Amino acid sequence: MTGETEAQAETVARAALTRVLEPGDAQGGRLLRELGAVELLRHLTDPEPGTSAPAGVGPERLAGYRRRAALAEPLRDLETAAAAGVRFVCPGSAQWPTQLDDLGDARPVGLWLRGGPDLRTWALRSVAVVGARACTPYGAHMAQTLAAGLAERGWVVVSGAAYGIDGSAHRGALASGGATAAVLACGVDVAYPKGHAGLLGRIAGQGLILGELPPGSHPTPSRFVLRNRVIAALTRGTVVIEAAHRSGSLVTARRAQALGRFTMGTPGPATSGLSAGVHELLRGEAVLVTDAAEVIELVGGMGELAPERRGPVLARDLLDPGASRVLEALPADRPVPAEEVAVAAGAGTDEVIGRLYELHSLGFVERQGDGWRLTMRRSRGGAQTDATRRGGH
Amino acid sequence: MTGETEAQAETVARAALTRVLEPGDAQGGRLLRELGAVELLRHLTDPEPGTSAPAGVGPERLAGYRRRAALAEPLRDLETAAAAGVRFVCPGSAQWPTQLDDLGDARPVGLWLRGGPDLRTWALRSVAVVGARACTPYGAHMAQTLAAGLAERGWVVVSGAAYGIDGSAHRGALASGGATAAVLACGVDVAYPKGHAGLLGRIAGQGLILGELPPGSHPTPSRFVLRNRVIAALTRGTVVIEAAHRSGSLVTARRAQALGRFTMGTPGPATSGLSAGVHELLRGEAVLVTDAAEVIELVGGMGELAPERRGPVLARDLLDPGASRVLEALPADRPVPAEEVAVAAGAGTDEVIGRLYELHSLGFVERQGDGWRLTMRRSRGGAQTDATRRGGH
Repeated sequence: MTGETEAQAETVARAALTRVLEPGDAQGGRLLRELGAVELLRHLTDPEPGTSAPAGVGPERLAGYRRRAALAEPLRDLETAAAAGVRFVCPGSAQWPTQLDDLGDARPVGLWLRGGPDLRTWALRSVAVVGARACTPYGAHMAQTLAAGLAERGWVVVSGAAYGIDGSAHRGALASGGATAAVLACGVDVAYPKGHAGLLGRIAGQGLILGELPPGSHPTPSRFVLRNRVIAALTRGTVVIEAAHRSGSLVTARRAQALGRFTMGTPGPATSGLSAGVHELLRGEAVLVTDAAEVIELVGGMGELAPERRGPVLARDLLDPGASRVLEALPADRPVPAEEVAVAAGAGTDEVIGRLYELHSLGFVERQGDGWRLTMRRSRGGAQTDATRRGGH
Repeated sequence: MTGETEAQAETVARAALTRVLEPGDAQGGRLLRELGAVELLRHLTDPEPGTSAPAGVGPERLAGYRRRAALAEPLRDLETAAAAGVRFVCPGSAQWPTQLDDLGDARPVGLWLRGGPDLRTWALRSVAVVGARACTPYGAHMAQTLAAGLAERGWVVVSGAAYGIDGSAHRGALASGGATAAVLACGVDVAYPKGHAGLLGRIAGQGLILGELPPGSHPTPSRFVLRNRVIAALTRGTVVIEAAHRSGSLVTARRAQALGRFTMGTPGPATSGLSAGVHELLRGEAVLVTDAAEVIELVGGMGELAPERRGPVLARDLLDPGASRVLEALPADRPVPAEEVAVAAGAGTDEVIGRLYELHSLGFVERQGDGWRLTMRRSRGGAQTDATRRGGH
């Protein structure tokens, strides 16, 4: 096989395995790592597996894998998905967010993705905003305001598309013309919860919807819990807005902490049961935050990609054509709204917003007020400073 | 001079110096430490000080001291005070709370005290609850509830008798039949703020009012700020309930921290300006607390006096007659309300409550529900455990 067909075979096998392994199945993940996707699938679909049974997985679990593998139709899944605008992204591919590799053998087998933006660059500047489904008006307000503030400063807001805090966070980011990604515990083509069908459509249009489960899959309680590890691993940090004791959002936050991500919480009245879980977190290692600036002060402090570090010309050459077109459409001297960039680039506004966030992650552009502008280059700024110095003395 | 007359001379000189040195005057405090109170006062009132001018204090400040010293009438102050039920307590005396020595040369010259209880033992189990004057109903509720919870668990609530959080804290402690102490920035006979005259009367009846300033002194802005250091130093820890940015309560909290005391804050809505200062603290070293149990978990964790450590018989013998009478009035087998103890001891309820808190600080009694009971002795408990063990095997 050539390298390309090998990669294609790997993709097809992994697409099939998303129907076989439940999210977070570390035993299956170990087999996948040891055997490779193609070999593992071949084994699971071999009518006479003989003596080659993989070690370390019980016969019952293996039988379950086989039953599911027999029903998998990865090529049909991939075709149906493509027709609905859904991509499948595998570890090792250019769009794979390598942060997820921190999950070890519990790393997703692959991700199904709806929406245009590049997940890998988006994840570089992303923060999770999560919390209670049955939140208070105060919690909804905080989620919306915080998400809007993050989006206005060029950060991607990641959440779980649930009612309550999650929905408010997505809406806050969308309303400020910003970037948001929803990580689902079901297929990315399934509108869950039903009441968020419209919201999910808007997220897919302006942002990203992603998940481990193949098209048509439905959520289960354990899938919700395991989805949270993806939210925690994907982002720089997790902010919990409102959460009762034993809430799933606390699981996400503790997971984020265990993965070395920043864990944050917004306080509320000590008399509110819906803030009790957050306060519990804040009595531990989590950092209290009250607005987007405080979040960014924490998560933005390290590792931001600056274009001069990688050489701007080379980086610009490496941009994909869509991103290049948007970058070229930006005027050199002033910030402009995304709509104006879209007209100049001859592209849709939603696509352009996605591109602008990618370019922001890579350090080419920055937000200013309601608009976007080219980042001042360090080299040019340095030269200007030198010139000023010479002039001043 | 005999030891007793020496101590009396020291007391009179220090009483005079409370009219000379402003609270927190560390330069004056250094002179006091180097020369002693009697010698310093003699120097300041000497009509011809000659060449013996103390080093390290400027001539203007010294002239100010002299002007004030010339007007001081300590014997009259002490007599007027005694007639109004006000004591004067000096460093080194049996009632002096040695925690205040942590303030170094800014230690109070002495304390004027209104109310029966023993300040030294009360301070051992005390927590400061402070916050905004113009608090919200939420803040008032939290202060009252927290203070009531602390008092119910046998802790003394210390605050500054101001409107808002301070007043709510005192009221919460009083309402639960508990112990509370007000540290004033004026004379302990001055009702400030005026609207709290009734509250101050109740505090003096059931608890303690104390301050550095001699009778009749009025508060000034700097006296308020410097009063806060006494609150911070006197207590095991300080809880800030509501405070705007730059609030005086934050000064108290930071002072407590600098002195190695616990600093705590109760969160509120991130949208409330009156919680902004508390959240600022909580983003630093302060610990988030939402109820009395969390406060006690923190401040009660170390250094609690247990009677068996000092030998219970000896300690009991060392109790003053008033405390002994109350201890003897407690039945051996059940908790009883303070009122019942008062009848049995032939004393007033307010005095008995004060004594019970002293006995609690010393480990003789504990609160149970609305009543008080003798503390189970470790030695007896240990013997019982041994017996149980032998029976079980």
